[in-house]
Amino acid sequence: MKTQDLENLLKEYGQKADKELENIVKKEGIKFLNEPVWYHMGSGGKRMRPALAMITTKALGGNEKDCLGFALATELLHNGFLVHDDMEDGDKIRRDLPTVWVKYGNPNAINVGDYFYSKAYEALLETTVDAETLKKLILLFTKVFNEVVEGQALDINSRAKENFNIEDYYQIIRKKTESYLVFTLLGGAIVAKANDEVYNKIAELGKYIGPGFQIRDDIIDLTEGKGRGGEVGCDIWESKPSILYAYTLEKSDDETKKKFLKIMNTPREQKTQEQVNWIIKLYKEKGALEYAQKEANELTEKALKIMDEIPIENKEIFKEIINYITKRKK
Amino acid sequence: MKTQDLENLLKEYGQKADKELENIVKKEGIKFLNEPVWYHMGSGGKRMRPALAMITTKALGGNEKDCLGFALATELLHNGFLVHDDMEDGDKIRRDLPTVWVKYGNPNAINVGDYFYSKAYEALLETTVDAETLKKLILLFTKVFNEVVEGQALDINSRAKENFNIEDYYQIIRKKTESYLVFTLLGGAIVAKANDEVYNKIAELGKYIGPGFQIRDDIIDLTEGKGRGGEVGCDIWESKPSILYAYTLEKSDDETKKKFLKIMNTPREQKTQEQVNWIIKLYKEKGALEYAQKEANELTEKALKIMDEIPIENKEIFKEIINYITKRKK
Repeated sequence: MKTQDLENLLKEYGQKADKELENIVKKEGIKFLNEPVWYHMGSGGKRMRPALAMITTKALGGNEKDCLGFALATELLHNGFLVHDDMEDGDKIRRDLPTVWVKYGNPNAINVGDYFYSKAYEALLETTVDAETLKKLILLFTKVFNEVVEGQALDINSRAKENFNIEDYYQIIRKKTESYLVFTLLGGAIVAKANDEVYNKIAELGKYIGPGFQIRDDIIDLTEGKGRGGEVGCDIWESKPSILYAYTLEKSDDETKKKFLKIMNTPREQKTQEQVNWIIKLYKEKGALEYAQKEANELTEKALKIMDEIPIENKEIFKEIINYITKRKK
Repeated sequence: MKTQDLENLLKEYGQKADKELENIVKKEGIKFLNEPVWYHMGSGGKRMRPALAMITTKALGGNEKDCLGFALATELLHNGFLVHDDMEDGDKIRRDLPTVWVKYGNPNAINVGDYFYSKAYEALLETTVDAETLKKLILLFTKVFNEVVEGQALDINSRAKENFNIEDYYQIIRKKTESYLVFTLLGGAIVAKANDEVYNKIAELGKYIGPGFQIRDDIIDLTEGKGRGGEVGCDIWESKPSILYAYTLEKSDDETKKKFLKIMNTPREQKTQEQVNWIIKLYKEKGALEYAQKEANELTEKALKIMDEIPIENKEIFKEIINYITKRKK
C-alpha cells in the first residue's frame, strides 16, 4: 500500500459518496432548507469521512457498498456540527464563502443544522446490514454525537479561560475528537463484522489520531490558515483554547500572562491585528509550535505502533490512513 | 373509560417518565449543558408525550415499561425543538422564565438543543424491544424529526407573508404536526406489536389531531395566552402564520390588508400594543375565532370517527386521548 494508492481510494470512494448524498438531501426542495444544505456542503466535496468508512469496510473483508448509509451519515453529522459551530464561534467565513448564518440568518441556520442531524439518522437507517448490526452502528453514532456536543460545551466555555493548561486542553479535545475521528473507521469495521480484537484496536487508535488531528489543526491555523479567507490566527481572534494557547499560558510569567489574557478576553470585533501579531510572536518565542509539533509526532507514532498489533493482514492501509489523518494538509 | 381515568393515568405515567429522565441526562454534570437542560425541562413536568406513548402500549396489550426508552426520547426531542424554536422566534419567556438563550447565551443554547437530540436517540436505543422492532421505532422517530424541521423551515419563512391563505396554513401545520402529535401513540403501538390495521388507523388520526391541536394552540394564544408571562397575542407580536392570520387576511379588503400586513411586517420590538390590539379586534370582527373553533371541532369529530373503525376492544381510551389533545387547556 502506497500513499498514492490511499489517496486514489479516498478520491474514488469520496466521489461515490458525494454523488449518493443527493439521494438523502435533494438539491431542490424546501427553500431555506435544501438550498442552504447544499450551499454549505458544496458540490463535489472530498467527503473524507465517508471514504474512510467505506475503505475500512473493504479492508476488513466487507463490501464497501453495505457501508454507504453509515458513511453518508458521518458526513451529514459533521456538516451539522459545522453549521452550528460557525454560529457558536461567530465565524463569518468558511471555505472563502459567507457561513450559513451570515447568508441565511440565524433562525434558518439553526434549523439547517438540525436538518443535517435528522438526515444523518435517515442515512444511517439505510445502511444495508441486519437489524442487530444496525443497532450497533446507531449506538456508536449516538455515543459520538453525545460526546462531541459535550466537548463543545467544555470548549465554548473555556474561551480565554485563566489558568487554562495542557491538561484542560487534552480534556476538551479528547471529548471532541477521541471518538469523532476514529468512528468512521469503527463504523466501517462494524459493517464488515470485524471481530472484537480488531474493533478494540481500532477504537484504541482514537486516543491518538483524534488529538493528533486536532493539534495539527491548531498548528495549521497558525502556519497556513484554515481556509477561512486564508487568514492566519483565526483561533486567536476567536479566543479558542488551542494547544498553543494552553502551552504558552503555562510558560508565561505573570506580567506577560496578564497582557496575553487581556487580549484573549477582548471580543473578536474589538481585537486589533497588532494584538494578534503580538500573540503569534509570543507563541513562537515560547516554542509553542515546536512543542505542538512534538506532541503531534508522538501521537502519530503511538497510533502506528497500535497498528503493529492489530491482527489483520493488510495493516499497511491503516498505517497510511493514520499518516493521512494526522499529517494531512488542509 | 372516563376523562378522570385518563387524567389519572397521564399523571401516573408522566411522573414515572419524569423520574426516569434523570437517568438519561444527569442533573449534575457539565456546566452549561446539564444545568440548562434541566433549567429548560423543569423538574416535575407533566411529560404528556411519554405518558401517551406508554398508555398506548398498555392499551394495546403490551407492557408499558418496554416503551420507556421511546417515551423519554419523544420528550427530549420535543424539548430540543423548543430550545431552538425559542431562538428562531426570538421568544424571551417560556413558562414565566427567561428562555435558555436569554439565560445562557446563544452558543450554549444551540449546543443544548443539539444535546437534547443526541440524548433523545440515546434514550430511544434503550427501548427494551428486539432489534427489528427498534429499527421500526427509529425509522418512525427519524421521519418525524425530519418532517418537523421541514415544517419549521416553511414556518419561519412565512412570517408576515403576503397572500398567505388557509391552504398555506394547512400545508405548514400538516408538516409540523401531522406526524408529530400522533407519533407518541404510534411508537407505543410499535412496542406493543400492534397489527398493521391498528397501526394505520392510529397513523390516520394524525391528519386530524395534529392540526386540531395546533389550531387550538392558535386560539389559546388569543384567548388565554400560552403561559409566556400570561401575555395574549404572542403570535401577533412574532408575526406567526396562525390560522387566525390566514383567515383574516383572506377576508380583508385591500385597504385593511395593507395596514394589517404593515403591522405584521414590523419587527417585534418595534410593534406597539395599540397595533396588536387593532389586529386582535380585526380577528374578532372577521369571525376568525369562530372559524378556527369550527375547524378544530370538525377535526376532533373526524378523529373520533376513525376510532369507531379501529379494530380493538378498548376504543374508549383513544377517544379520551383525542378529546384530551384537541380540547386541552394549556
